[in-house]
Amino acid sequence: MPALAIRRLLAEFVGTMLLLTAVIGSGIMAERLAAGNAAVALLANTVATVFALFVLIEVFGPISGAHFNPVVTVVFRRTAALSGGDVLLYIVAQLAGAAAGAMLANLMFDLPAVQWAAKARGGPGQWLAEVVATAGLVLVIARAAAGRAPALVAAYIGAAYWFTSSTSFANPAAAFGRMFSDSFAGIAPASITAFIASQVVGGFVGLLLGHSFGGEFGGVSRGADQ
Amino acid sequence: MPALAIRRLLAEFVGTMLLLTAVIGSGIMAERLAAGNAAVALLANTVATVFALFVLIEVFGPISGAHFNPVVTVVFRRTAALSGGDVLLYIVAQLAGAAAGAMLANLMFDLPAVQWAAKARGGPGQWLAEVVATAGLVLVIARAAAGRAPALVAAYIGAAYWFTSSTSFANPAAAFGRMFSDSFAGIAPASITAFIASQVVGGFVGLLLGHSFGGEFGGVSRGADQ
Amino acid sequence: MPALAIRRLLAEFVGTMLLLTAVIGSGIMAERLAAGNAAVALLANTVATVFALFVLIEVFGPISGAHFNPVVTVVFRRTAALSGGDVLLYIVAQLAGAAAGAMLANLMFDLPAVQWAAKARGGPGQWLAEVVATAGLVLVIARAAAGRAPALVAAYIGAAYWFTSSTSFANPAAAFGRMFSDSFAGIAPASITAFIASQVVGGFVGLLLGHSFGGEFGGVSRGADQ
Amino acid sequence: MPALAIRRLLAEFVGTMLLLTAVIGSGIMAERLAAGNAAVALLANTVATVFALFVLIEVFGPISGAHFNPVVTVVFRRTAALSGGDVLLYIVAQLAGAAAGAMLANLMFDLPAVQWAAKARGGPGQWLAEVVATAGLVLVIARAAAGRAPALVAAYIGAAYWFTSSTSFANPAAAFGRMFSDSFAGIAPASITAFIASQVVGGFVGLLLGHSFGGEFGGVSRGADQ
Repeated sequence: MPALAIRRLLAEFVGTMLLLTAVIGSGIMAERLAAGNAAVALLANTVATVFALFVLIEVFGPISGAHFNPVVTVVFRRTAALSGGDVLLYIVAQLAGAAAGAMLANLMFDLPAVQWAAKARGGPGQWLAEVVATAGLVLVIARAAAGRAPALVAAYIGAAYWFTSSTSFANPAAAFGRMFSDSFAGIAPASITAFIASQVVGGFVGLLLGHSFGGEFGGVSRGADQ
Repeated sequence: MPALAIRRLLAEFVGTMLLLTAVIGSGIMAERLAAGNAAVALLANTVATVFALFVLIEVFGPISGAHFNPVVTVVFRRTAALSGGDVLLYIVAQLAGAAAGAMLANLMFDLPAVQWAAKARGGPGQWLAEVVATAGLVLVIARAAAGRAPALVAAYIGAAYWFTSSTSFANPAAAFGRMFSDSFAGIAPASITAFIASQVVGGFVGLLLGHSFGGEFGGVSRGADQ
Repeated sequence: MPALAIRRLLAEFVGTMLLLTAVIGSGIMAERLAAGNAAVALLANTVATVFALFVLIEVFGPISGAHFNPVVTVVFRRTAALSGGDVLLYIVAQLAGAAAGAMLANLMFDLPAVQWAAKARGGPGQWLAEVVATAGLVLVIARAAAGRAPALVAAYIGAAYWFTSSTSFANPAAAFGRMFSDSFAGIAPASITAFIASQVVGGFVGLLLGHSFGGEFGGVSRGADQ
Repeated sequence: MPALAIRRLLAEFVGTMLLLTAVIGSGIMAERLAAGNAAVALLANTVATVFALFVLIEVFGPISGAHFNPVVTVVFRRTAALSGGDVLLYIVAQLAGAAAGAMLANLMFDLPAVQWAAKARGGPGQWLAEVVATAGLVLVIARAAAGRAPALVAAYIGAAYWFTSSTSFANPAAAFGRMFSDSFAGIAPASITAFIASQVVGGFVGLLLGHSFGGEFGGVSRGADQ
């Protein structure tokens, strides 16, 4: 049982790390190559994020549920059979993984491992966008048919990068990790509290929507193949 | 039975809303970032629409059939086991959802909730394009193998955004909702009557084509998993 | 039996028509929007072609085998249970469909229905490219697992648009139809004989490769679901 | 048995050849068309590589395992039931195929068949990137569910092209073949030793990670359908 718990936490740590490495690394690469064309840069960032999410959820889903996201962990804690203490450990693993992922991306691009993002984000439109993005994410996961979550979550985020004004963080761990990258993909520390608050609201809205449409939030144990 | 009907109508409302939010929101984002490169903007709009359609049909298909489109509702009313009154309610839900989706996109991008599009569209080529686009959509749905409709409809619209001169609305609710966005994705109110008429003609052509190829227009009950 | 044959021929006609409409229509749209950036135009053309091929093979595969290509019809005539006369009828339907598809694209973009392409293509590199492109196509079809041909053929052509110097026609009917479009996607009439000859050579090479790798060229009847 | 061995080696040769043709050919095409926009060129290169990898692993996976990569062959030699001598033969076939693929791409684009790349690559960031890229590749293969490897490996490389500073070679045979292309996709001979060393380190890291997460490295025989 403790061995199982460690493997699941390690999956959340490594999965969130690689997710943030993909998001931030592709953001740095896109910014360097796109020569100021922000639409091409965001297209590249979208392609990399969609592919990475699909692969990471396929790879780590059977171990930990592949949450990589504190809102998802709280909302789907019964689905993943997590106690209150497990939820806290999951979130610690996700935040640590997110920071490690930002550092790994920075190092691969010959930047200082730890940076602080200068890019301010926010305002009513973007906060509403984070509510919408997170609510949609929770609804998609709650309604995903067996085995379809990797493709659905990846496709959903790929769309939401473009249809929300915030480029859809939808994940407090992602917001936390992006704070350590002074790039196209970064978010200034002063901006993240409001982003995370919006995501928490979005999680509640998603829970309500999901219940309205008969989504699955518990009972079926998922995410532990050993 | 009434509870079921409400959940199905809610699915059509929310699904059409999110579809229009995706189409219009990504149009606004693409226009802002693309710096005048319309091909890059339409590529981004395509990516977001394809991903959103795939996810929304997967999520809402088992509830309402995921029509999000009055032509589809009329043509496939027997497949979805809808009475004449149900058809009207579906269309009202779709139109209301489309308008709400445009407003949500506008609010996320800090624009006035209600706008009127200035972008005129039309002419013989574009009207023919809407006939072709809608006929193809109906044919694809009629011939889709079990469980393949989400991927097929999404891929079809992704292609049709590019191969039709109208960028393939193929949906009266989409035309209605896009009227409320003064952006790359908008359509001026004066232009939509001819677009919708073309889509209705396309629906008939698609029905004929579908029958010629042994497509499925009824008998099998779909779209009600509870 | 005659009714069956007509439905299959109609499927080849309509399928090839819509394939050429997608290839040429997206070529015209891409050229108009891309403002001289040929890489963005070819990306858009690739996206539209890949999505269209996937959908058309899914839709028409169970009826006619979804060849849309004389080389494929000749090489896989036993798989599709076609007599020598059937092969000729298939090819006539494909060529007629290809020409009709070019005309439909032209009309949707308010161009004269019949045009002649001015764009010369050829030279040893491009002829070699057509051999490679067609051989690869035959190999992919011969080795495709049950139900995987639509995704595999679409993905293969999407790659070959970029890795061959000819942008991978790989199909005499496509070459024939593109002759009627004076656009980015066109090919001058004087250039098509050598293209088609290269494709025929590629068909033989693909047949040899396919046999070497245990591909399937007959015995199993496919492409007639009624 | 010898006949089987030859077919498997031929699959590794042809598959690696076509993979390198796709990577290098699309690199040349993208460079020619992109008019200096490196982000658009890498997007095109990504699309072609992802589609080609997916198709080639589907086509050759049941014959040889579709390694196309010496690190994969060494790490998964028990999964593919290869003796020490078989491993050497696989690697020879992969290297020969990679060189042949570069030459084929050069010839299709009317370039001299054999070129030497001038593009220097390296430095601590890129070497770390190759470790990460290769470790991730091994982990993805080890954890791939039955039948999912083609989509997962293709998607993984598509993401890694963008999130690593080296554009993710992750394959000594790919590094070897790209040496023969003086293009966007090339790598100078002086740079490849350090790249390959980094990939070998990445293979070990991937093996450790894979074992930590219960990945599959042997016992189940794969890659020999005849």
